[in-house]
Amino acid sequence: MKRDQHFPAAARLAEIEPFHVMEVQRRAQALEAGGRHIVHMEIGQPDFAAPPQVIEAAIRAVRTQSLGYTDALGLPELREAISRFYLTRYGVDVPAERIVVTAGASGAFLLALGALVDPNDEVLMPDPCYPCNRHFVRLFEGRARRVAVDERQFYQLSASDVRREWNDGVRGVMLASPSNPTGSTIPTDELRAILDFAASRRGFALVDEIYHGLTYSADGDPLSTALAMSDRIFVVNSFSKYFNMTGWRLGWLVVPQGYLREIEKLAQNVYICASAPAQHAAIAAFLPETLAVLEERRAEFQRRRDFMVPALRKLGFRIPIMPQGAFYIYAGCESFGPDSSAFALRVLDEAGVAITPGLDFGLNHPERHIRIAYTRSMEELEEGVARIAKLVGR
Amino acid sequence: MKRDQHFPAAARLAEIEPFHVMEVQRRAQALEAGGRHIVHMEIGQPDFAAPPQVIEAAIRAVRTQSLGYTDALGLPELREAISRFYLTRYGVDVPAERIVVTAGASGAFLLALGALVDPNDEVLMPDPCYPCNRHFVRLFEGRARRVAVDERQFYQLSASDVRREWNDGVRGVMLASPSNPTGSTIPTDELRAILDFAASRRGFALVDEIYHGLTYSADGDPLSTALAMSDRIFVVNSFSKYFNMTGWRLGWLVVPQGYLREIEKLAQNVYICASAPAQHAAIAAFLPETLAVLEERRAEFQRRRDFMVPALRKLGFRIPIMPQGAFYIYAGCESFGPDSSAFALRVLDEAGVAITPGLDFGLNHPERHIRIAYTRSMEELEEGVARIAKLVGR
Repeated sequence: MKRDQHFPAAARLAEIEPFHVMEVQRRAQALEAGGRHIVHMEIGQPDFAAPPQVIEAAIRAVRTQSLGYTDALGLPELREAISRFYLTRYGVDVPAERIVVTAGASGAFLLALGALVDPNDEVLMPDPCYPCNRHFVRLFEGRARRVAVDERQFYQLSASDVRREWNDGVRGVMLASPSNPTGSTIPTDELRAILDFAASRRGFALVDEIYHGLTYSADGDPLSTALAMSDRIFVVNSFSKYFNMTGWRLGWLVVPQGYLREIEKLAQNVYICASAPAQHAAIAAFLPETLAVLEERRAEFQRRRDFMVPALRKLGFRIPIMPQGAFYIYAGCESFGPDSSAFALRVLDEAGVAITPGLDFGLNHPERHIRIAYTRSMEELEEGVARIAKLVGR
Repeated sequence: MKRDQHFPAAARLAEIEPFHVMEVQRRAQALEAGGRHIVHMEIGQPDFAAPPQVIEAAIRAVRTQSLGYTDALGLPELREAISRFYLTRYGVDVPAERIVVTAGASGAFLLALGALVDPNDEVLMPDPCYPCNRHFVRLFEGRARRVAVDERQFYQLSASDVRREWNDGVRGVMLASPSNPTGSTIPTDELRAILDFAASRRGFALVDEIYHGLTYSADGDPLSTALAMSDRIFVVNSFSKYFNMTGWRLGWLVVPQGYLREIEKLAQNVYICASAPAQHAAIAAFLPETLAVLEERRAEFQRRRDFMVPALRKLGFRIPIMPQGAFYIYAGCESFGPDSSAFALRVLDEAGVAITPGLDFGLNHPERHIRIAYTRSMEELEEGVARIAKLVGR
């Protein structure tokens, strides 16, 4: 027990880490407060505000609606809009009743893992991955079973990993495509084989698709959803990334039919409903004119990626595969020293560029990696690259 | 495992119940869809929309702010406004740094109990009480230790209850003043004695003050906050009740100094931040002109209580003590039959008035009690009372 804690904190907290990126952000803000100009490449949120149609819908809602609790599963009109989106964008039939509107993707993870993880259960996940994954599992007294992945398997779990690692203590598997921090996607055949294998072991599969929509394939085709392969999986999505509604805290969870009542009970208890103004606003996110705005922004992210990856490679960063989605580049920084945290600090202090050290994303050689987000304008990204070039002498 | 569940759900779900009031609401909505007029006395949310100043602040925010993630602990300006409110309303100094803005009071319970409850820990709470309390404890693998309370102790835990029930497995105590479903408050001396005793056992105290502001003492004095007695307790509050921002999903948690870092880590993981439009809007909730609106509404709730309690007593409901706060009346309905659920159903189907059976609130003779909310206009409440009078033949 810490000196200033007068009664003990829960044991789980010892294994739940803070986001190290927040420390980077605080230091960056301190430098800014002292008059320095900082280029932010650490932040995992789009630099675009919500589309104008969404903003106008929000204003209409707060002017005209009483905004009491909504149904715990979300506004029926929003759930219908999401269902139609699955049909029009992916050609996949996902009934509105299986779509649960959540308080951000965080709320979706909370519901799904609260409904699926018992104490001491193991949950497979790739390393590196989004830090909250293991923390959510720990929150419910389960254990993350992290499997080291690298560029040879696109930084994703392969079907053979899953088969090898799935022992009797494993309850399920968490996947993300595109992934944070690597921006990589799961090849269709691997994904199908993993979902089939998990089902054969009566285990769950929870697929994070929060970066869906932000993919940059050569032929412009969107990545297909895992829901095209199975209706017996949990899928998480979000209005924070493609839809640019980060601070509104809205996401959704697609739930297999047999778990809807369980998930509803949990939602009633853990957040009652997602924020009503955000829900009303989000209905406008699926209008054709909104989607046109979002597609322009997607193209802008693609331009940024196409600039950043070769530019960083030229500086000496190791980027063995082209990231196919999200807005992150997971780069090896071995050529600049043995410790990515020390390197990130030097880049911030000496070059005025904020980047995220690998430490947030797992135990798989975090000291050799950094994550760079291209969530700033081309001008700023060019400036950031120029500053790092000067620092590393290229 | 249920027939349509292809992989097992977590064991905790078997002990987390749905809100029975939702079933009442659904049945009421079905009747309304069939053309019946229903008087709603089941709903635990104010019938007032957010005050106009809050709505205007929301509109300004969505028009002018980019609305990305806020700090996980909340907007500094909002935390400062809450801190000032403690000083001006209660004369209590609660530094802004100890105030964490949460996704509703639900988010506050989630953070506090996630940080305090280990598997198999027992947590004391009164019965009847708000159903989420025991569910949150169960969510983190703890156990609610429910203590039957009645009107002789204002439906609240007494200090002697707490002393008697506090065995070695007890980790802390949950209190609510005013309480849902009883509207009763904890006498100052009892509260102080409970907090002192919990501290002497190195246990936590978590005090729910979400109905603060909605109290109706004869001298018009607001109930004092438990924070006046101790800075080593967790206190939950909400913008949903007094502030009439129900659907916005915003609350706050006051945290003892030594636990701030732990709570911040959890907040980053479980919801990242509360909805930003709601946070910006809520800053305006503390303006003098907003508080004037809220005080008028409080007086309206008091008028309703002062009408409802004698009217219900006259019909034969047992209301042994005058509820001092919130907007609920917890009434004995023994004189209408042995089963409050059957009675509530009859009142809904035959009289067209929705009320909540005791079942939601615990195991302490729920069959003898119902909860009536006065969250509708005087005209509707009068109509509802007249309908019940006709049904029960008074």
